[in-house]
Amino acid sequence: MKIGILFGAKSFEHEISVVSAIALKKVLKCEIVYLFCDYERNFYLIPTDKINAKKFSSGKYKKETRLHVDKGGFYKKGLFGNTLIECDVVLNLIHGGDGEDGKIASILEFFGIPFIGPRVEASVMSFNKLLTKLYAKEMGVKTLEYQAVSKNRRDTLTIKPPFIVKPSRLGSSIGIKIVKDLSELDYALDVAFEFDDTVIVEPFIAGVKEYNLAGCKADDFIFSIVEEPIKEEFLDFDKKYLDFSRTKRLNEASLDEKSVLKLQDSFKKLYEPMFAGALIRCDFFIIDNEVYLNEINPIPGSMANYLFLDFNSAIEMLCKNLPSSVNIPMSYRYINSIQSAKGK
Amino acid sequence: MKIGILFGAKSFEHEISVVSAIALKKVLKCEIVYLFCDYERNFYLIPTDKINAKKFSSGKYKKETRLHVDKGGFYKKGLFGNTLIECDVVLNLIHGGDGEDGKIASILEFFGIPFIGPRVEASVMSFNKLLTKLYAKEMGVKTLEYQAVSKNRRDTLTIKPPFIVKPSRLGSSIGIKIVKDLSELDYALDVAFEFDDTVIVEPFIAGVKEYNLAGCKADDFIFSIVEEPIKEEFLDFDKKYLDFSRTKRLNEASLDEKSVLKLQDSFKKLYEPMFAGALIRCDFFIIDNEVYLNEINPIPGSMANYLFLDFNSAIEMLCKNLPSSVNIPMSYRYINSIQSAKGK
Repeated sequence: MKIGILFGAKSFEHEISVVSAIALKKVLKCEIVYLFCDYERNFYLIPTDKINAKKFSSGKYKKETRLHVDKGGFYKKGLFGNTLIECDVVLNLIHGGDGEDGKIASILEFFGIPFIGPRVEASVMSFNKLLTKLYAKEMGVKTLEYQAVSKNRRDTLTIKPPFIVKPSRLGSSIGIKIVKDLSELDYALDVAFEFDDTVIVEPFIAGVKEYNLAGCKADDFIFSIVEEPIKEEFLDFDKKYLDFSRTKRLNEASLDEKSVLKLQDSFKKLYEPMFAGALIRCDFFIIDNEVYLNEINPIPGSMANYLFLDFNSAIEMLCKNLPSSVNIPMSYRYINSIQSAKGK
Repeated sequence: MKIGILFGAKSFEHEISVVSAIALKKVLKCEIVYLFCDYERNFYLIPTDKINAKKFSSGKYKKETRLHVDKGGFYKKGLFGNTLIECDVVLNLIHGGDGEDGKIASILEFFGIPFIGPRVEASVMSFNKLLTKLYAKEMGVKTLEYQAVSKNRRDTLTIKPPFIVKPSRLGSSIGIKIVKDLSELDYALDVAFEFDDTVIVEPFIAGVKEYNLAGCKADDFIFSIVEEPIKEEFLDFDKKYLDFSRTKRLNEASLDEKSVLKLQDSFKKLYEPMFAGALIRCDFFIIDNEVYLNEINPIPGSMANYLFLDFNSAIEMLCKNLPSSVNIPMSYRYINSIQSAKGK
């Protein structure tokens, strides 16, 4: 099997995507084709044996082959027309904007390119923290209470500190601040509103335990181990960045079987059918024996490879179970019937 | 001003889009460039003076110039490279799948093509009737009570007839049935599940009045008149099809000023900031003096031109107030700092 890893793009998490892509080279056993999208949304073919972080930061990637996307895949131009870059499936590894907001999913779907990753609706649902909460509730999974605050209605906030302020639409802890005292509120809101018009405010629960569970559905559900991430108050961008290059398993949670099953049950409720075709990581809290969803990572850092006992099999199984698009037969029956009524 | 009307595509409402596009020729005063997407998602440039419905149903459009989409717009191939098809703004007039589900919005956003139409998140929210309900509630606008039923959980339905059964994700009344007696339920569900895995069931309220209000936000909100659509129980696909070719104003609702303001107020709550850049039509009910959202049409048939006193000005004003994309500065500061720590 040959996998095309699509990474980079116009995103605050561009660098994280680069690191994530390089990390996968160490763990994927199949052949890899690297499809890079730069900040200007130009595509390049990066030779697998030449990939390293400096190639991108130095701008040297620009010397590699330019690609464009069209029906069926990515193409390079040649003297005698375009040549398809062969791969069996594209893995959408663009974290944050473009990759997780539905744009890349749409392009891959529109051009009929088989891919691993959330579809457009799943992307939009998980990219926006407010929508994630509404969705989780509808699926029967609890989330922390919250308040959504819009830029021009700052005064509507009624939750008491300590609380956590998050831009509604960014991942990787960008723009997130903990407010322990109301004197810190203005600055926290200023920062968050730099990134989004809507901000989510949630109670900050000191010492709450977080549990990360990754998985996908092939014939049946494939789950990772449950990890209890080691963290300070929360992971800031620098630490998450390092986290995204991980290839080693760490800190399995010491949970009883019943709790693990509870987490898996919540995961299933969230996954199906919305996230078909994606390998996602759900970050949960357990509070007073109840499972709460914190967030859904529809494209986890380095695909959360370090959480799986057999990551390669999981990816292979998923590739064989990608959702098919709806068949829409060509039809002009109304136009034809009007034409024939007109005697044309 | 030159507007590129993008229509057709792989959608159950492909024909409706064709009719809608042709109708706009009669009402738009600016120059039009017709950008057609066929059922196979190939793009064609259709000369404005040669457009008619038969061109598409007969397949003769295939003789016109092929286009492809790339950064900045639609291009035709030539001996000496690609030529951009000039237009100031693209109007997304693809009804249903592709156009309203976020795919086209994503492609236009990704390639930096200015356009009138819902952005990807707005598309996903309004395309799925369940998400629309969750969103409306969050924005403080009521919707009818409902139950969402998934394909493998038909037995969970508890609402009593008469009710209306709708596939969660299609517009234009496709797959919608009224169930007056439980004996009709199985058939109605079979039909709806042909189109979607999730079905929305809502009480059917005989004689409820529907009010349609279209609008957009430029400097300020521009509203259409309120129409009370003439209808039988509900418009089926055939009648909606004819409806989409409308260019004449019909049946202004006889509502007092207070009620009109109530509808406009609900429209504003739903529109901003989600639908920035789009001209949408909201279909409301008024029951016991309370406004309920029925559905949001993010790309109404022939852009609901017949509802506006001055449709051309509305479009022109909207073109001048399209949302700009977020600026994301190129940054490799983490990779650079790691490289420099390594002494590279």
